Amino acid sequence: MISPLLTDLYQLTMAYGYWKLGLHERKAVFHLIFRKNPFKGNYAIAAGLETVVDFLNHYQFQEDDLQYLATLRTPDAKAPLFTADFLSYLKTLRFTGDLDAMPEGTLVFPNEPLLRVKGPLIQCQLLESTLLNIINFQTLIATKASRVYQAVQGGAILEFGMRRAQGPDGALSASRASYIGGCDATSNVLAGKCFDIPVRGTHAHSWVTVFPNELSAFFAYARVMPHNCVLLVDTYHTIQGVKNAIQVGKKLREEGYELQGIRLDSGDLAKLSIEARAMLDAAGFQQTKIIASNSLDEYVIQDAKNKGAKIDIWGVGTHLAVAYDHPALDGVYKLSAIENESGEWVYKLKLSEESAKISNPGIHQVKRFYQNDVPLMDMLFDEEKDIQNPLEMYTLDERADKITIPSYNKTLDLLNPIFQEGQCLAVKESIHEMRKRSLNQMNAFLSMHKNKMYPVGLEKNLYEIKQQLIKAI
Amino acid sequence: MISPLLTDLYQLTMAYGYWKLGLHERKAVFHLIFRKNPFKGNYAIAAGLETVVDFLNHYQFQEDDLQYLATLRTPDAKAPLFTADFLSYLKTLRFTGDLDAMPEGTLVFPNEPLLRVKGPLIQCQLLESTLLNIINFQTLIATKASRVYQAVQGGAILEFGMRRAQGPDGALSASRASYIGGCDATSNVLAGKCFDIPVRGTHAHSWVTVFPNELSAFFAYARVMPHNCVLLVDTYHTIQGVKNAIQVGKKLREEGYELQGIRLDSGDLAKLSIEARAMLDAAGFQQTKIIASNSLDEYVIQDAKNKGAKIDIWGVGTHLAVAYDHPALDGVYKLSAIENESGEWVYKLKLSEESAKISNPGIHQVKRFYQNDVPLMDMLFDEEKDIQNPLEMYTLDERADKITIPSYNKTLDLLNPIFQEGQCLAVKESIHEMRKRSLNQMNAFLSMHKNKMYPVGLEKNLYEIKQQLIKAI
Repeated sequence: MISPLLTDLYQLTMAYGYWKLGLHERKAVFHLIFRKNPFKGNYAIAAGLETVVDFLNHYQFQEDDLQYLATLRTPDAKAPLFTADFLSYLKTLRFTGDLDAMPEGTLVFPNEPLLRVKGPLIQCQLLESTLLNIINFQTLIATKASRVYQAVQGGAILEFGMRRAQGPDGALSASRASYIGGCDATSNVLAGKCFDIPVRGTHAHSWVTVFPNELSAFFAYARVMPHNCVLLVDTYHTIQGVKNAIQVGKKLREEGYELQGIRLDSGDLAKLSIEARAMLDAAGFQQTKIIASNSLDEYVIQDAKNKGAKIDIWGVGTHLAVAYDHPALDGVYKLSAIENESGEWVYKLKLSEESAKISNPGIHQVKRFYQNDVPLMDMLFDEEKDIQNPLEMYTLDERADKITIPSYNKTLDLLNPIFQEGQCLAVKESIHEMRKRSLNQMNAFLSMHKNKMYPVGLEKNLYEIKQQLIKAI
Repeated sequence: MISPLLTDLYQLTMAYGYWKLGLHERKAVFHLIFRKNPFKGNYAIAAGLETVVDFLNHYQFQEDDLQYLATLRTPDAKAPLFTADFLSYLKTLRFTGDLDAMPEGTLVFPNEPLLRVKGPLIQCQLLESTLLNIINFQTLIATKASRVYQAVQGGAILEFGMRRAQGPDGALSASRASYIGGCDATSNVLAGKCFDIPVRGTHAHSWVTVFPNELSAFFAYARVMPHNCVLLVDTYHTIQGVKNAIQVGKKLREEGYELQGIRLDSGDLAKLSIEARAMLDAAGFQQTKIIASNSLDEYVIQDAKNKGAKIDIWGVGTHLAVAYDHPALDGVYKLSAIENESGEWVYKLKLSEESAKISNPGIHQVKRFYQNDVPLMDMLFDEEKDIQNPLEMYTLDERADKITIPSYNKTLDLLNPIFQEGQCLAVKESIHEMRKRSLNQMNAFLSMHKNKMYPVGLEKNLYEIKQQLIKAI
């Protein structure tokens, strides 16, 4: 359970400010978006929503949280940071707003809201840091896994990044998101228990070093694990290890079992796998799988495949679990509308000298246009305004070029209602469905948009509102 | 509380194997080391021990953990992965071994054990993934923070990486380790509560955009937070923001308060800070601090300082909390000794074609040699063997050069007993002590070893044991 104290202090000081000024109940709208695709890629995979739902369902300050907050003083130490009546107010606070979100596994692009939060200003504000923390990380890792999935082209992927992941939850969330993005299983037993992900694993070098030599270690392993015998062959010398594994495989077969696999964990994996495959085949072990690991990522895998690697299962660890080459998604959470005293929406944006950092005002929905299930383009539009007819769309960069609308035969609005006035509407979805969604969407997308930027535009009404607001400031 | 299921499945399959073979109670020794300094630096700062102690003190499989394990099948689905009597055994399992460790905040170098675990083989094995997860990440972040501390040269550092950290615990552990490494405070309220770290923060862009304009937003903030008024000035235009802040500062002063600071969050921070400082000084606000943020790390900070930046407080987020340029420490955990049937130690190593990956056999302690509190070099030696006289030491690389011993007037053994036969001996240390240790050690170290590799060697006896073992294999 994630504590509501997992937030930045300034959310609480702002909350206190809104409350003191009587602004805290004003209805506001915030969007959680990211600005750039990670990994120099052209898409991302939304993930983390279930964790968000769990967080919101249990959102409540505990007695000891409030006791802690009561101890905080202003930096000049002259006053308590928060008054006792504000802390009493916090005690009663629950999430009573609306949440709309993209289902996990959805392909998502820069500037599109993964989450839209509408509710009392104080609640929207207090949630910012936690929602960003959850969505940024899981979306990042699901995207990385999806890239690994592309590289593997049909092989299986085991995620086993726990030992170098960023803390216990860094490991747990990474296992979850990796599965959504396309991994087949994880080594993380807790993730298996918590999220119904298949778990896999056999033995490490330490097993081999415990015994007097490799062959005795392999025989011992086969004896106690005849159904589950995958042998790590590189503790001393890989080719000798393969020979020893074959010897053990023959013994296993005599006893009615099969050697499931061997694992390579160092050296030139393409070369060694070709050699090992030939040795296994020659000895009659055509069904024995070759598993490879050692600092793998999509680039190393692609390279090994180009070299003809005979690898059936790819064990991907650190580079996936921490998204090594791009370890943070740049998600932000921006106010885009707030009610005035008369209950009318006032649209808001944040300017910036960098045009990419200018936020989009309004209350957004994302419409995806398809031709025969292949996505063609996405359009951000404002749910409170009409979509202008005929349809017009402008790119989100500073040039704001008009986008030509291709012919399409289906559209879909991507944000689904998850909470309404604090009531959770979402039915718990199986993680296997999320994974299927991400793989289906990625395959459809790649059939048309490989290495191309996918068009995302602002609907004409929303575009004009934004231009007017920029001018007004 | 970290679950014992936060482990890789192969630890459990190996544990099952040892148990079935009756090897599980054999006493073994494992060392947790890393191989390369992170960030192309020449040291690391040990962190995470308190989290490890807490984990070991509560090490116990719960009923639902065992129920989950009972559902697992072998990959061929023909048999349960674990037998019921093994799961009954796991139910009774507690940590009954010895743990020796470097105190948090200690400077540590490649190949030195941060942890040494001695105990029944099955326990040592089951702990591997979790210990690595905890120590790798916290050590990485403490080291990054220490580098930021060096760059800041006397300014204060606020850590506020939560929103892009790797999951809830990625944020929490990062805040803890950042403080040990040298940060002054965090924005993470939960870290403040859990770890007694000072928390800081004021307001975000959203506060400004809620109001009709910046000036009204600033006045409103000052009204409700007169003791704690730090104004973020770049929502629309930084220099105009500074002017507005000064106007508000004058009003605050009339009412007996002081403008605490302004925050710059975009643009050329050196240039803007020089301009803002001049404006504040000219208006009589010499005491108002300038806080800067926006993708800072040690390099950006150094660059801004070189350009004469007038920044008092540095807000460091993503690049610190995920160690952006080196997001994983390469820690490993290797078996180095195991008792044979007669209870004698048999020393072990793992070979590799890369000599840096050959592990060191034995039961290690690290002796640090000092001259007047300045560390000169470290020596790995075997606690069960004597140190040869006269002292001889060899480098750990494949050349194994003899190291000249400089004159010294103090030595210290770095591994302290933390658990003995499962009993926790460690007294809870204040995090402020850990931070003091890291800063003292770093300053002493830098006085002599700036940009130089620090010598770490193998004591002659241990060196000879290792050479014999390599030959024997």
